[in-house]
Amino acid sequence: MNIDQSKIPQATAKRLPLYYRFLKNLHSSGKQRVSSAELSDAVKVDSATIRRDFSYFGALGKKGYGYNVNYLLSFFRKTLDQDEVTNVILIGVGNLGTAFLHYNFTKNNNTQIIAAFDVDEQKIGTEIGEVPVFHLDELEERFPADTPVAILTVPAPAAQSISDRLIECGVKGILNFTPARLSVPDTIRIHHIDLAVELQSLVYFLKHYPNE
Amino acid sequence: MNIDQSKIPQATAKRLPLYYRFLKNLHSSGKQRVSSAELSDAVKVDSATIRRDFSYFGALGKKGYGYNVNYLLSFFRKTLDQDEVTNVILIGVGNLGTAFLHYNFTKNNNTQIIAAFDVDEQKIGTEIGEVPVFHLDELEERFPADTPVAILTVPAPAAQSISDRLIECGVKGILNFTPARLSVPDTIRIHHIDLAVELQSLVYFLKHYPNE
Repeated sequence: MNIDQSKIPQATAKRLPLYYRFLKNLHSSGKQRVSSAELSDAVKVDSATIRRDFSYFGALGKKGYGYNVNYLLSFFRKTLDQDEVTNVILIGVGNLGTAFLHYNFTKNNNTQIIAAFDVDEQKIGTEIGEVPVFHLDELEERFPADTPVAILTVPAPAAQSISDRLIECGVKGILNFTPARLSVPDTIRIHHIDLAVELQSLVYFLKHYPNE
Repeated sequence: MNIDQSKIPQATAKRLPLYYRFLKNLHSSGKQRVSSAELSDAVKVDSATIRRDFSYFGALGKKGYGYNVNYLLSFFRKTLDQDEVTNVILIGVGNLGTAFLHYNFTKNNNTQIIAAFDVDEQKIGTEIGEVPVFHLDELEERFPADTPVAILTVPAPAAQSISDRLIECGVKGILNFTPARLSVPDTIRIHHIDLAVELQSLVYFLKHYPNE
């Protein structure tokens, strides 16, 4: 099977990691096939969307049979490059940063946080979740080769200047947890998760779209 | 002005908190008007989308003048119910939960975490970020009146049973930071933020949609 990745819509692509994880659990429990209704119930995506998504992967479920778990799983593994580990660094070892360092990402996907940076002398030189913590002043000299992704969990006022340095080091994507909106070249991808905005958005939806 | 909230598309609604925060900063710095281009640059949403969003609010920018900051700000404040504080509780005072308790939400929006629950005896009875921490066993008796929102930062295996209890207590919306997909009645709104999925999604986009 040869799928042109660029033909998969971004909205579909965003759901791949979800599908992948659920199918992996199914596979571990010995299940051989799954219906779109079961998938829908587990990942909370409606089954029409699942069927449309899967059609992009060349996976056509059979009526009364469903999808073959092994086929889907090997497709997703290849598509998500599960066999290739992506290096990640983390900047800012506060509570949120520490939560990330303790979070066992490799259990569910092949990303690995290989270094962390902070300015707190108490943390520098230690390991948290087996990840060494270095001084932010040494970012350029300690920057590990082939590390395209950075997680940014620093105070907002520091976010832009650190991003500039990360990009200079070769980072291509930043998971930005600060409230700061970053200005970066078009070639750099930013995923922005603002905890205050997420909370406010939930409150807004509760008030204005009740019972949907 | 009388806007029918239910006519505002959900995608537009999601951007309101972003717009609101930026306009508040503008207002504090004494600015009286703003162009959609300036807004676009600050909040990283393209200006055509901003103009379309604002047209739903009855805000029609004038060519060469832009939008009136005061007008927009008072509209957003009313729309986002900034004058009414929404109570929030937090379950799970680990690193991520602690990050939330220290995060000063009220600076930018009117939500307030008023109680936290955990099972760690070292934390119970203390205050973190001025929020009291109670034992999870006492959730039902300590549950504060009029608290429609809960933040869930517990280990995944505990997520479903705690959600059931929260809903029984009257919670209407859950900000779910666990990898667990929750089964809840249709009347309950779940916003799910899975850190591993966010990271994997960024990696996937970097590999398959470079230079967009």
